[in-house]
Amino acid sequence: MMELRKDYILDRWAIIAAKRGKRPHQFKQEEQDKKVDVCYFCPGNEKTTPPEISRVDDGKGGWKIRVFPNKFAAVEPEGDPAIKTDNKYFTYSSAFGDHEVIVETPDHEKDLHDLDVGHIKQVLEVVRDRIEAMSKREEVRYVCAFKNHGSAAGTSLVHTHIQIISYNKIPTIIEDKIEKNKVECHYCRIPNIEKESFRRCFENEHWISFTPYASRFNFENWIFPKKHAKNLGEFNDEELLALAEVMKKVLVKLSELNAPYNMAFYYSPRGEDMHFHIEIMPRIAKWAGFELLSETTINTVAPEDAAKFYRGEE
Amino acid sequence: MMELRKDYILDRWAIIAAKRGKRPHQFKQEEQDKKVDVCYFCPGNEKTTPPEISRVDDGKGGWKIRVFPNKFAAVEPEGDPAIKTDNKYFTYSSAFGDHEVIVETPDHEKDLHDLDVGHIKQVLEVVRDRIEAMSKREEVRYVCAFKNHGSAAGTSLVHTHIQIISYNKIPTIIEDKIEKNKVECHYCRIPNIEKESFRRCFENEHWISFTPYASRFNFENWIFPKKHAKNLGEFNDEELLALAEVMKKVLVKLSELNAPYNMAFYYSPRGEDMHFHIEIMPRIAKWAGFELLSETTINTVAPEDAAKFYRGEE
Repeated sequence: MMELRKDYILDRWAIIAAKRGKRPHQFKQEEQDKKVDVCYFCPGNEKTTPPEISRVDDGKGGWKIRVFPNKFAAVEPEGDPAIKTDNKYFTYSSAFGDHEVIVETPDHEKDLHDLDVGHIKQVLEVVRDRIEAMSKREEVRYVCAFKNHGSAAGTSLVHTHIQIISYNKIPTIIEDKIEKNKVECHYCRIPNIEKESFRRCFENEHWISFTPYASRFNFENWIFPKKHAKNLGEFNDEELLALAEVMKKVLVKLSELNAPYNMAFYYSPRGEDMHFHIEIMPRIAKWAGFELLSETTINTVAPEDAAKFYRGEE
Repeated sequence: MMELRKDYILDRWAIIAAKRGKRPHQFKQEEQDKKVDVCYFCPGNEKTTPPEISRVDDGKGGWKIRVFPNKFAAVEPEGDPAIKTDNKYFTYSSAFGDHEVIVETPDHEKDLHDLDVGHIKQVLEVVRDRIEAMSKREEVRYVCAFKNHGSAAGTSLVHTHIQIISYNKIPTIIEDKIEKNKVECHYCRIPNIEKESFRRCFENEHWISFTPYASRFNFENWIFPKKHAKNLGEFNDEELLALAEVMKKVLVKLSELNAPYNMAFYYSPRGEDMHFHIEIMPRIAKWAGFELLSETTINTVAPEDAAKFYRGEE
């Protein structure tokens, strides 16, 4: 049965064309080789990165988490951030912003899902602090925090890290999410519907994880807080630890498939109110011509089957 | 210099973060291996495909171009194509439509750019005829014709071919292109501006090729007809041959980089009026977390440099 499905609130569509009988382990990817000649993110090579912005100490004279500017930044805090239009069709500005790297652990062999829950919580605190700090530039309209895990997800450096790019525009997709939730917060309701559905994955006192109804990626997973919160800064220690716990559960399951993935943090920019959430997008299948032409995605794993996999039922 | 640019008419953005001094040949990809145990698209294996829909004869008892249903279709002409919503958030229908394959040549070793211009014109005629035929189903709202070339562009079968998927929805992006051109056809003006710019690539009596201002892909290339036309059916023999000529020029240049690419045909669905055009999207760089989160694309090749490459100036 092939089904066309729409995102809960966005005008974004997916064709769920589940390959009948294909079991989750058949999606298993090759394990990524972590061997490199020199790792610029490893302890001992700190001098090869741009000057450190902040760190979490390991209590033994070293670092546990480290933040520094990306050496190959995609944006820069230079030029004119005002968006202008010439000759009707040519709209542009400087790509004004900062591009930072958060190295999550000194251990080259570990991935985010290998870290203990307390350590993951500390990574989340650093993400929270950097979003807050980078938002302070007046010219910055949005701060994009994301993780690329695995080569197919666009990682060039294998040592586990998160990237943050701020820039002078609220992304259209974020504007759309804000707009669609203006009258009422659908993101307060949807997770509570989904946690009772076949798409439920994990839940604790503060967070709900589920595979979205119109999943565009194989094994896509969304994590929502139960309380309405605009950004990571509104969660206390207990809530952040609970987020780390759910996140680890999702990523540990994905690691069974050696799945490359992107993880994205969605928060409310200045003056706006959108329910904070996290989307985890495994990059097992490739988007091809159909996806690029139609912006409708073909997904051969039904989210209901993906949820079963997350719940350990197959 | 990093620049944020907006598409001519869509609310779609790209960061042009050109790597200074990186020359086109440094983007050269590994050549794809065409060797396979059995090729289901090769002459002699016709029985392994679903029943043939049409063919262009080679004049020697064999075929030159062959059309048949995709054995692993993403849509099917079954179920209820009416889009329904349950419980406010769950919008769905059958993924109703047809999925066909056009094998462009019997020669396993050749790619589309290797074919002579007359042969490419015949491929375009088959694309035109299949879009027209597949549009005839009342339930079908749009017919997506596209090509995936190379593994990074999502090809699973290396024998050169085009795919066509029809379905029961006008893609949101097409609705957007139609809407934005309602008051005046911007696509009548833009190519004429771009052919005088640093982004010009190829031009003949009937067609203009250029690298779009807010290119989202390295070496992205658009081909527009000079005359306002809704679809391929409005071009005569001379105009189709001229399209084949420009298309071949673009693809031959891309082949110098062994670039995987997707090519998409954009036409006006029933009752609508959008200027026909073709977009060629090389898949050299991978979209990562930033692109998926923000739907803003980072492109490290400035379209002005890409155009120089197409024009053979470097």
